[in-house]
Amino acid sequence: MAERSIDHLAIIGVGLIGGSVARALKAAGVVGRITGVGRNRQHLERAQALGVIDALSMDAAAAVADADMVLIAVPMGAYDAVFAQIAGKLPHKAVVTDAGSTKQYAIAVASRHLKTLRRFVPAHPIAGTERSGVEASFAELFRGQLCVLTPTAETDADALAAVKSMWAACGCRLHCMEAADHDDFLAAVSHLPHLVAYGLVNTVRKQGNAEHDPFQFAAGGFRDFTRIASSSPEMWRDIVMSNRKAVLAKLAALEAELAHLGELIRAGKDEELAREFTAAKQARDAWLARCRKLP
Amino acid sequence: MAERSIDHLAIIGVGLIGGSVARALKAAGVVGRITGVGRNRQHLERAQALGVIDALSMDAAAAVADADMVLIAVPMGAYDAVFAQIAGKLPHKAVVTDAGSTKQYAIAVASRHLKTLRRFVPAHPIAGTERSGVEASFAELFRGQLCVLTPTAETDADALAAVKSMWAACGCRLHCMEAADHDDFLAAVSHLPHLVAYGLVNTVRKQGNAEHDPFQFAAGGFRDFTRIASSSPEMWRDIVMSNRKAVLAKLAALEAELAHLGELIRAGKDEELAREFTAAKQARDAWLARCRKLP
Repeated sequence: MAERSIDHLAIIGVGLIGGSVARALKAAGVVGRITGVGRNRQHLERAQALGVIDALSMDAAAAVADADMVLIAVPMGAYDAVFAQIAGKLPHKAVVTDAGSTKQYAIAVASRHLKTLRRFVPAHPIAGTERSGVEASFAELFRGQLCVLTPTAETDADALAAVKSMWAACGCRLHCMEAADHDDFLAAVSHLPHLVAYGLVNTVRKQGNAEHDPFQFAAGGFRDFTRIASSSPEMWRDIVMSNRKAVLAKLAALEAELAHLGELIRAGKDEELAREFTAAKQARDAWLARCRKLP
Repeated sequence: MAERSIDHLAIIGVGLIGGSVARALKAAGVVGRITGVGRNRQHLERAQALGVIDALSMDAAAAVADADMVLIAVPMGAYDAVFAQIAGKLPHKAVVTDAGSTKQYAIAVASRHLKTLRRFVPAHPIAGTERSGVEASFAELFRGQLCVLTPTAETDADALAAVKSMWAACGCRLHCMEAADHDDFLAAVSHLPHLVAYGLVNTVRKQGNAEHDPFQFAAGGFRDFTRIASSSPEMWRDIVMSNRKAVLAKLAALEAELAHLGELIRAGKDEELAREFTAAKQARDAWLARCRKLP
């Protein structure tokens, strides 16, 4: 069993991500006690009844006052309020990390509220399902998944080490990079697909008429393609809005790609269309093959 | 056990679909013998060794000469060659059906080669996986899936009944509709998603640089969203090209939808963005709930 490296962990936001971190760290035996913080008492009581957290609090400032690690696992739209609440209440040695999908925004909010970024280590565990809430959480969510860390120039080495240790204990592979690069790549592989999935379902929805429900003709391909369109609309609104510049750039790139495919179809250039499809298939199949080789 | 309704079935194209029909009809006990037809002898021998077909032939004209049912299960791009080969060789009473994804094109090709459309019943079993080939075939592929039939004004009632009976024996739910409507709806729920999945993977592929492989940041959402981009490029090139008008119309509708979402993001209209996401989520969740209620 791993060394107990966190005495008191405060998790602000006990949903799918916060709940899964709690479960994973308890399973790994690396945490003393966990206080869950949220705005909904019933929800926190449910988390406590499930054994995910040991104590609950609706007062973030009080909960972090004797924590040695604080995990912020709320939607991006709640970052400003949460950092405002905990700023000035954190013990000097406490380390703060988060699990948000956009990192430049997290750093910008933290900069606005914290006196220093020395103890803040922005993180993004790239894992999730289309479900939300503590009931959907499970200890294995992060097993083998990448967790990107985007420490700033100010970050203390021991704070970075503590946060690395925590996410590693959840089962994550770790990768450090610039926040701007993270946001750029995630816009392409995650934020844009969500936008498109929502957009495609709305496109299909509007094709309906009195006689036919277009969804009745949908099968497994459509179901998988649009799975992420069943994700929380508010959460994804916040993510997209907190990474606007990169998302708009990737959307423009996709629009150009689709316009090009449309041109090939219109012009009857079937060999060139097949070449585009083949390039995509090869890239995806190669990626899956690399995934299978991961430890 | 069901009545033996087909004495000799010729399946032209023994891949995922043709192979699965053969397996399903054998499992249901409604077929006497099955001749598999194709261009690749090794491939047909493999299908025979697997017990999927009873006999093999590389001569479609000879194989259909004493068939009472002919199933065309080749890619849309091979329709013209196949109909040219079998035209004039079909016994008078033989019924022809197909499994192609676009129906106006199938009817147009059949019209060009057959003296009459009385014995041709266009069909589209809406089922499949991203894999191809007889090795990927299985008897349960069609279980509970919709099979759309698009008989023309010429279609004989007994031919329609025989084809309905065959697809029902595969486990399909049946739905008759106009070929044009079919092609329009399928363009939205199937052809367009494939186009977008290929386009999105290519967009991501082009984001790579020397330092980072963008795919390394992709997770389960991206994997499911792009699963259909691992489908056969040639098959989907043919489908898209054989339904160009409808696919281009749906592509334009999606482009307008994406442009609208982009405008909302650019203008910071976060409530309106959330409303769009919510409408999509509700439509998808309602569809899934309806699917679960199906027999």
